[in-house]
Amino acid sequence: MILTVTLNAALDVTYQVDALTPHTAHRVATIAERAGGKGVNVARVLHALGEPVLVTGLAGGATGARLLTLLAADGVPEAFAPIAGESRRTVVVAAADGEATGFWEPGPVVAADEWDAFLDRYRKLLPAASVVALCGSLPPGVPVDGYATLISLARAGNVPTVLDADGEPLRHGVYAGPDVVKPNAGELSRLHTAALGRRVFVGSLVEAVAAATAIRDLGADTVVASLASAGLVATNKDGVWHAVPPHRVDGNPTGAGDACVAALTRGLAHGQPWPERLRDAVALSAAAVHAPVAGELSLTDYQRLRAAVTVTEVS
Amino acid sequence: MILTVTLNAALDVTYQVDALTPHTAHRVATIAERAGGKGVNVARVLHALGEPVLVTGLAGGATGARLLTLLAADGVPEAFAPIAGESRRTVVVAAADGEATGFWEPGPVVAADEWDAFLDRYRKLLPAASVVALCGSLPPGVPVDGYATLISLARAGNVPTVLDADGEPLRHGVYAGPDVVKPNAGELSRLHTAALGRRVFVGSLVEAVAAATAIRDLGADTVVASLASAGLVATNKDGVWHAVPPHRVDGNPTGAGDACVAALTRGLAHGQPWPERLRDAVALSAAAVHAPVAGELSLTDYQRLRAAVTVTEVS
Repeated sequence: MILTVTLNAALDVTYQVDALTPHTAHRVATIAERAGGKGVNVARVLHALGEPVLVTGLAGGATGARLLTLLAADGVPEAFAPIAGESRRTVVVAAADGEATGFWEPGPVVAADEWDAFLDRYRKLLPAASVVALCGSLPPGVPVDGYATLISLARAGNVPTVLDADGEPLRHGVYAGPDVVKPNAGELSRLHTAALGRRVFVGSLVEAVAAATAIRDLGADTVVASLASAGLVATNKDGVWHAVPPHRVDGNPTGAGDACVAALTRGLAHGQPWPERLRDAVALSAAAVHAPVAGELSLTDYQRLRAAVTVTEVS
Repeated sequence: MILTVTLNAALDVTYQVDALTPHTAHRVATIAERAGGKGVNVARVLHALGEPVLVTGLAGGATGARLLTLLAADGVPEAFAPIAGESRRTVVVAAADGEATGFWEPGPVVAADEWDAFLDRYRKLLPAASVVALCGSLPPGVPVDGYATLISLARAGNVPTVLDADGEPLRHGVYAGPDVVKPNAGELSRLHTAALGRRVFVGSLVEAVAAATAIRDLGADTVVASLASAGLVATNKDGVWHAVPPHRVDGNPTGAGDACVAALTRGLAHGQPWPERLRDAVALSAAAVHAPVAGELSLTDYQRLRAAVTVTEVS
């Protein structure tokens, strides 16, 4: 099975209101709740594709319990390690005009012995994993090189890894040699600046290829940069590819990155050729953007888009 | 002891953010959580004053469990009846400039047998109660004449009642003959319009006295109208009084109404003369407005303000 790791799991809550008017009180018409955090979202996409998957990570408190209940209702198997702190919530206030305003709670503080207990659990789960996807932010208390540790443990067990993170956890993780790193343009730009001491802006395909290649040289086997409507750029020792959707897909970009990571993880698990992995990743991302509800994609959209994605090798 | 009833209990959550900017994502700097709902807040004030108190009502789900944990941490005894639904949360987004934006979740749906089970519990708690305070909104599923039923049961057991509600639950409740009803200007105006078929606006002392007297004639022994900085107007068969704070108190009006109900409930329990009850109620309300944190009032402020409140009999 594919193992996804969500250290800063969240209960994603959406409040539907008529309109958001600052400095007033709003009656929330309806509430939607979902288990969230990037690794959870990646697992949900893989589960929808019929891929055997297991989610692990850290969850605690009443919010953590609620999250696990909702995950079970989605049919996604989990092996979260408990923590004493309360898992965070994200609250999105959705107005009738389609505009959304988000509030991200800080994560729970993780104790040193809770992190150690998670590492024990992770070591026990590794032998059954075909690939590990490490996704999202680290809650306070988890060492900044937490992803580097998880990548090293996976590597020692010959389990390949996909890393989707930001900032210092991403930088430390890249040095540990993950198989795939998937930054978006902003993450790639920040990582390049922090790791190579030179501020770069990733605004074009050429800039993306240059920055991704520089990051690959730091330790990752393959860097896949996601460039929103400009598609994906991937670079590794065998080549450089650019995959683009057939047309601009309008919709909600929430969930597109997680769908992309799901496809890259599945491609790694199945040893799919890189052009096919990228085709899948672009099609799944576009299907997620097109979905009326964030994170819920149509398999019909996915198949239709898949046939229309263009993948070119960049010389 | 004083029994307070909170049928639509809430977990009150405050998100501190730098500034609220619609259509963007906000990192929440700190989160504060408190057990809430009007009857819970009234009980907390009574508990702070050293008054024996018990809170009952309906609470359920992970939110209900969290609410009860926080209430226990506050030292307030409770005898909530469980429900299968999730108790609601209120989320207040507090910006650094002091402005607050609120999101009120809808209450849980209460099943008929859950309401019956609550009534059983309420009947068992009544004999030990000196006064019952019935406060706040009714969640979906509780009959609109729910407060009327609770008032009738208390009356049958010779336990006096204080009612603080709005809309149809208030209107039905008034006909059941509570000892004290405490509407604010808006509630009084809506109640007068609905019950007497004539739209009134309560904007002056004269209008408040007229509307309160009309409501008293519907069934309540005493009507106490809270008029924000203009203080309180009370009317019953023995007289009409107006109680005003010594000066305009700046601060957060959240909690002022609950502090007022706490004072009126305690005064009823102790058979305090009406002018003294009103003096207490104005002073406690003003202390709540003056408190830096909503709902946390200083006993020093209360005592200082108490000495300075003016109570006059209106001829």
